[in-house]
Amino acid sequence: MDIRIALAQIDTCVGDIEQNTQAILEWSARAAAAGAHVVAFPEMTVTGYPIEDLALRASFQRAAQAAIAAIAAELDRTGLGGLTVVVGSVGAPQASPSSPGLRPTNEAVVLSGGQVRAVYGKHHLPNYGVFDEFRIFAPGSETCVIEVSGRQIGIVICEDIWQDGGPVAQMDAADVDLLLVLNGSPFEQGKGHLRTELAARRAREVNAPVAYINMVGGQDDLVFDGGSFVVGVDGSVLASAPQFVEHLLVWDLADDGAPAYRGELTPALDPHEEIYQALVTGLAGYARKNGFSSVVLGLSGGIDSALVAAISADAIGGANVFGVSMPSVYSSDHSKDDAADLAKRIGADYRVQSIAPMVDAFQDQLHLEGVAAENLQARVRGMILMGLSNAEGHLVLATGNKSELAVGYSTIYGDAVGGYAPLKDVDKSLVWALSRWRNNAAIDRGELPPIPESSITKPPSAELRPGQVDQDSLPPYDLLDEVLDAYIEHAEGRAELLARGFDADVVDKVVTLVDRAEWKRRQYPLGPKVTALAFGRDRRIPITSRWREPRP
Amino acid sequence: MDIRIALAQIDTCVGDIEQNTQAILEWSARAAAAGAHVVAFPEMTVTGYPIEDLALRASFQRAAQAAIAAIAAELDRTGLGGLTVVVGSVGAPQASPSSPGLRPTNEAVVLSGGQVRAVYGKHHLPNYGVFDEFRIFAPGSETCVIEVSGRQIGIVICEDIWQDGGPVAQMDAADVDLLLVLNGSPFEQGKGHLRTELAARRAREVNAPVAYINMVGGQDDLVFDGGSFVVGVDGSVLASAPQFVEHLLVWDLADDGAPAYRGELTPALDPHEEIYQALVTGLAGYARKNGFSSVVLGLSGGIDSALVAAISADAIGGANVFGVSMPSVYSSDHSKDDAADLAKRIGADYRVQSIAPMVDAFQDQLHLEGVAAENLQARVRGMILMGLSNAEGHLVLATGNKSELAVGYSTIYGDAVGGYAPLKDVDKSLVWALSRWRNNAAIDRGELPPIPESSITKPPSAELRPGQVDQDSLPPYDLLDEVLDAYIEHAEGRAELLARGFDADVVDKVVTLVDRAEWKRRQYPLGPKVTALAFGRDRRIPITSRWREPRP
Repeated sequence: MDIRIALAQIDTCVGDIEQNTQAILEWSARAAAAGAHVVAFPEMTVTGYPIEDLALRASFQRAAQAAIAAIAAELDRTGLGGLTVVVGSVGAPQASPSSPGLRPTNEAVVLSGGQVRAVYGKHHLPNYGVFDEFRIFAPGSETCVIEVSGRQIGIVICEDIWQDGGPVAQMDAADVDLLLVLNGSPFEQGKGHLRTELAARRAREVNAPVAYINMVGGQDDLVFDGGSFVVGVDGSVLASAPQFVEHLLVWDLADDGAPAYRGELTPALDPHEEIYQALVTGLAGYARKNGFSSVVLGLSGGIDSALVAAISADAIGGANVFGVSMPSVYSSDHSKDDAADLAKRIGADYRVQSIAPMVDAFQDQLHLEGVAAENLQARVRGMILMGLSNAEGHLVLATGNKSELAVGYSTIYGDAVGGYAPLKDVDKSLVWALSRWRNNAAIDRGELPPIPESSITKPPSAELRPGQVDQDSLPPYDLLDEVLDAYIEHAEGRAELLARGFDADVVDKVVTLVDRAEWKRRQYPLGPKVTALAFGRDRRIPITSRWREPRP
Repeated sequence: MDIRIALAQIDTCVGDIEQNTQAILEWSARAAAAGAHVVAFPEMTVTGYPIEDLALRASFQRAAQAAIAAIAAELDRTGLGGLTVVVGSVGAPQASPSSPGLRPTNEAVVLSGGQVRAVYGKHHLPNYGVFDEFRIFAPGSETCVIEVSGRQIGIVICEDIWQDGGPVAQMDAADVDLLLVLNGSPFEQGKGHLRTELAARRAREVNAPVAYINMVGGQDDLVFDGGSFVVGVDGSVLASAPQFVEHLLVWDLADDGAPAYRGELTPALDPHEEIYQALVTGLAGYARKNGFSSVVLGLSGGIDSALVAAISADAIGGANVFGVSMPSVYSSDHSKDDAADLAKRIGADYRVQSIAPMVDAFQDQLHLEGVAAENLQARVRGMILMGLSNAEGHLVLATGNKSELAVGYSTIYGDAVGGYAPLKDVDKSLVWALSRWRNNAAIDRGELPPIPESSITKPPSAELRPGQVDQDSLPPYDLLDEVLDAYIEHAEGRAELLARGFDADVVDKVVTLVDRAEWKRRQYPLGPKVTALAFGRDRRIPITSRWREPRP
């Protein structure tokens, strides 16, 4: 017989076992209502992902284990015992290579009939880029194939399919009718194709379709884009879910001949729309998961704060965006006009707080000059935003872009103040491109473009001294962004940069600025480690963790 | 014949290949002058340690390889070719499990006669606590035994001896006359005994003495304490170097009978002195390696800032310490007197900057109340310190202790401002104990105690509102610190805390404060990752890295 597979592309929260449990129960019920025999959830569903050092806390491990038992019992109690539910969680602690003490596995758990029917421990623990799983998990070594209505379904987790010769290679191809992959795969520009091509390779390896279920939502600095799919042995995408939204993707694994239900196909997003949606998803998730319903930011009239405001309005609604114009004696009239215009376009709260009286009070005592005086202005603005945040409860957004952060055009405790920096990984060239894309998208829908045209077209300036513009001291942004991409993203050295044909003066200037800025940006209260654990470093727990010690 | 072993316990700097190279040449010459046949340096001597993601940068790997060749040639050129020199560096990149691309090894390199005579790649890559070596290195798989004047010397690196069944077990015991261990082992309260006991176990395993060479100096939040030693097969310490200073420990491996030279033995430090010296070493190293020759800090008259000032004076000299009293309307007279008294005792620069005019300027516009108004005072102080830092070039020190940081008695962008927080890992009980120890040490030496007695004896208060004292809202510090130790250092859950006999109300209060403060303390400009790499997370490079792209 055909069996119906549902991929529940949901948005979990790190540490919020209770809410994640509720989501698993609700989406299992939806899958059952859609006639599914099997419903699969993303990697680490019960615990959220990535949980970093939270994985090592015994009370957290116990709570996750208890949640698995409770989910199985509740599914059975509500008549869903016949549904096969595949969720991710932390497994039992065990010895791990190269680490003292015990580590849990990164586990897939198969539930049916009110029982845990099978478990699978992820073999390949990624330990590069944003991943540090070798630190917190013990690797699994067994394969897992379950039978549902006479069909054999192999189960693996995320990195297992990115490495050749893993558990997929160990599965007897003849025995598998479907390979199910649970994922917590973060968004990266243009990654969608990589995933489908990789899944297609594994589909050929096991001679069966591959169902790829990915999580969705913002989690700290990671954005999970969903985009779950099923790919056939011939490499064609048989079904695909939209990106950036929770979704139930339903697809029939046919017994023979044509399946009863083929599943939907979602077209790929425009590349700029995809990045813009990632930024909206990241901010919306960060605010919600950390308990903020509003944001506050400085509106300078420039393009960076305008784009951040537009993203904020799309993420949490314009009425929840609080913009503050904080003019100094160096602020131009057009800056103030553009800031007010922007706030009106997106329906944001708008107020003006002059910084002159505070700057004067500091200067009467400190008499700062040069960069110290420029930093003072930026810091007074940061203090105003933090004061409003403390008094009114908004999340402070820092509006700096990747290009200026990279070269150090930012003041620590000044414009760097904030709990979230939406443009941290968006260079200036992309800031302009996304702003134009967002405005054009509004025009296409017959809406007012959110960003004033003059914010897009005027020359960028920090307005910290008279007549200052960024290009006084920086190469043109299109050139700068190319050099930054090679030096930072591709970790190229001076020799490689010159071999690309960049001018030596430009290379040396940019490399010097970046090296200096890297050090300055990393400045935060470090201190010595004198005991076995110390704050800030040993206890790596995601900012957004909602885990709290269970109360009686 | 006897062979003479020199252990060169030196202070390297991450990324400063040139300076580390010079140090290797200088200390090799000293070892030769002392008649040594072999001189061994700590782990990762050429590159500094820990280098984190710097290990992955190709231009850095090339520079380290070039330095090795240059060191071998220069030793030979200066007549030291007959000396066997063992240094640490990054090895050649190779495939690594669970990571895409190539990783270098963490390597020991044996030089003599102007050549690389042998290399050894560390087998066990620690990946817990402060260590993330599995992320950046490929593990070695071969053992390494070199012959010097007919004697067999086995070489391993640090974690290799902390794991049973490693390369030490693979060595044929009959073949080894000495086991040499290169270490980058960070200081931890009371760790000395662990090291000698472990080394004694390995000495029995290979039936030969173990020579343990450890690095010394502050490197970001880690303090390396040196304390190199040689332990015999019977477990007795045969020679030992002092902690917290660069040192050449010389010891003779006897052919038979008594050795010509037995080596010195250094008595262990008093436990409080050991921690105090670790704090001094950490601050001195951080300042020097980051190019600061002076520090600035707020002097409140309280015990925390007094202890930080005393540590600073011991680390870089009282004349390089710039203390700022920043009284508010809530500051008591005794606070101002104690601050001035302290500055005078340690010979620090001292000035008074009232915060009232700036607080008033903000309040005229913002009208903040409650915690927002308290934070405003702390933030004005932070801005004054940063302004002085920018204008005069001092490193800003944050003076918060571990207990108050743990429970959130700290203002982000306020008293948390600073590049280094000397008491970050020192709880309040230990702050008092170290202050008393330091004053008594002065009295023992017939010197003026640095810390005013009333700073030690008065009840702690933030003085952010009238009559405020810490114990209004916190359990007594001795109790608080016990609960914090169990909850943070030992990662115990509520159940374990209650089982220890702590009162449930106290446990729930502390756990709630810590969980909330953890989240607040981790707040910094996060932002989405939209490209393969993003700032702040993927590029893990130590703050103090002095690596710069080579110029022509």
